[in-house]
Amino acid sequence: MTGTLKKWLTKIFKLYSGKDRKVAEAVHMITGGWPGNIQLYKLAMKHSSMANENAQGVKESNERLEYLGDAILGAVVAEYLFCKFPYKSEGFLTEIRSRIVNRETMNRLSKKIGVGTLVEYDHSTRGSISPKSLYGDTLEALIGATFLDKGFKWSRAFIIKKLIIPHFDIEEIVSNNLNYKSKIIEWAQKANREIRFDIVDIEEKNHLKKFTAQVFLEDKPLGVGYGLSKKKAEQDAALKSCDLLSID
Amino acid sequence: MTGTLKKWLTKIFKLYSGKDRKVAEAVHMITGGWPGNIQLYKLAMKHSSMANENAQGVKESNERLEYLGDAILGAVVAEYLFCKFPYKSEGFLTEIRSRIVNRETMNRLSKKIGVGTLVEYDHSTRGSISPKSLYGDTLEALIGATFLDKGFKWSRAFIIKKLIIPHFDIEEIVSNNLNYKSKIIEWAQKANREIRFDIVDIEEKNHLKKFTAQVFLEDKPLGVGYGLSKKKAEQDAALKSCDLLSID
Repeated sequence: MTGTLKKWLTKIFKLYSGKDRKVAEAVHMITGGWPGNIQLYKLAMKHSSMANENAQGVKESNERLEYLGDAILGAVVAEYLFCKFPYKSEGFLTEIRSRIVNRETMNRLSKKIGVGTLVEYDHSTRGSISPKSLYGDTLEALIGATFLDKGFKWSRAFIIKKLIIPHFDIEEIVSNNLNYKSKIIEWAQKANREIRFDIVDIEEKNHLKKFTAQVFLEDKPLGVGYGLSKKKAEQDAALKSCDLLSID
Repeated sequence: MTGTLKKWLTKIFKLYSGKDRKVAEAVHMITGGWPGNIQLYKLAMKHSSMANENAQGVKESNERLEYLGDAILGAVVAEYLFCKFPYKSEGFLTEIRSRIVNRETMNRLSKKIGVGTLVEYDHSTRGSISPKSLYGDTLEALIGATFLDKGFKWSRAFIIKKLIIPHFDIEEIVSNNLNYKSKIIEWAQKANREIRFDIVDIEEKNHLKKFTAQVFLEDKPLGVGYGLSKKKAEQDAALKSCDLLSID
């Protein structure tokens, strides 16, 4: 144990100096790997409010890395769910992916794993920066940096082993899916308002029935949902109505 | 040459038989690689109108592979543009990516490289299937199949070397971006008609401004366009107006 610690300390003291060492240690803690190209990770932490113009007149911030990381994260989670649910439809996979990867979850996760403490931004502009996007964007930029630094396989392992598996209960996310109807009914009861679910259309195609459900709040139409069963269409309509009413 | 041909023929006759051979040859022609798991590629060619239910009661079609391929394609093109344009903003990269990867371009490309001849779909339902999405979706499913069969690196090389570089003139896509406004103004001058560009909306979100531009032809509204700068929104609106007026 002491040997390992000594080796570890020697390594980081040899490789990085000063401020870089702090970043390298943090990246190691978060991703499980030591940075190869430390500059990538430093850039990933730099919010556009701290950007300097480079020789080409381009503002250097984490926005490009965020664009890349977002695409890599999307692909990795797509594959992860594809393999985890071999018998589920692409509609299901798309839905679950969007429940895992969205602004809110990424922001929460980013703060939870300590990315928040590393972000460099201009505190004087804080009022105009949504902290939600600040942290989530930085996590995506960090994913972009690991991808460029260590390649797809490594980056995939980081995303799955360090981000998805420990921080998302996929089974719960899937089953939560079925609770929107109860959620909105509960909300209506508390608010003492009348809510109603109607099946407004049934379309038959290729021996499949496609149901359209509509939620009404005191006869005012809210969300419309679709599904291959009444239950699914109602859940979909309930989900959309929850969004419309900002119930979460 | 004859030796290579013989080796080639022996290989495919040994590996694949009957209908599989036809699929294997087509996949080789399109992707440059021989299928490892031929079933993946056969599934990629199967439109949902031809789906059979498997033992788990799931319809087996290319829709799941399309979901996966779409994510992989997005990530590969994101990285390609990231590296190709090291000094461009993420707004530019996002814009150019959406010009390369969209339903129309994927559909056109799919037919051009011969994926169209391989698609299996129920011809009796053709009226209800948009051919546009049929071909593009199958190409995305094929990308999903190569990714599962041969991994990310191989799939990336296929996408870049066989799809992007030979079929997209990126420089032209980038510069085309800037020419629609001049084009429509020139057309209006020749036709002696009055044309006007207005910025009708500016939405601010995540430190980015999203502009909405509207083209008016003698006060009659034409195309509406969006972009992260006034110039881009106007170009987008101009492009859509050119389409509406059949100017090319």
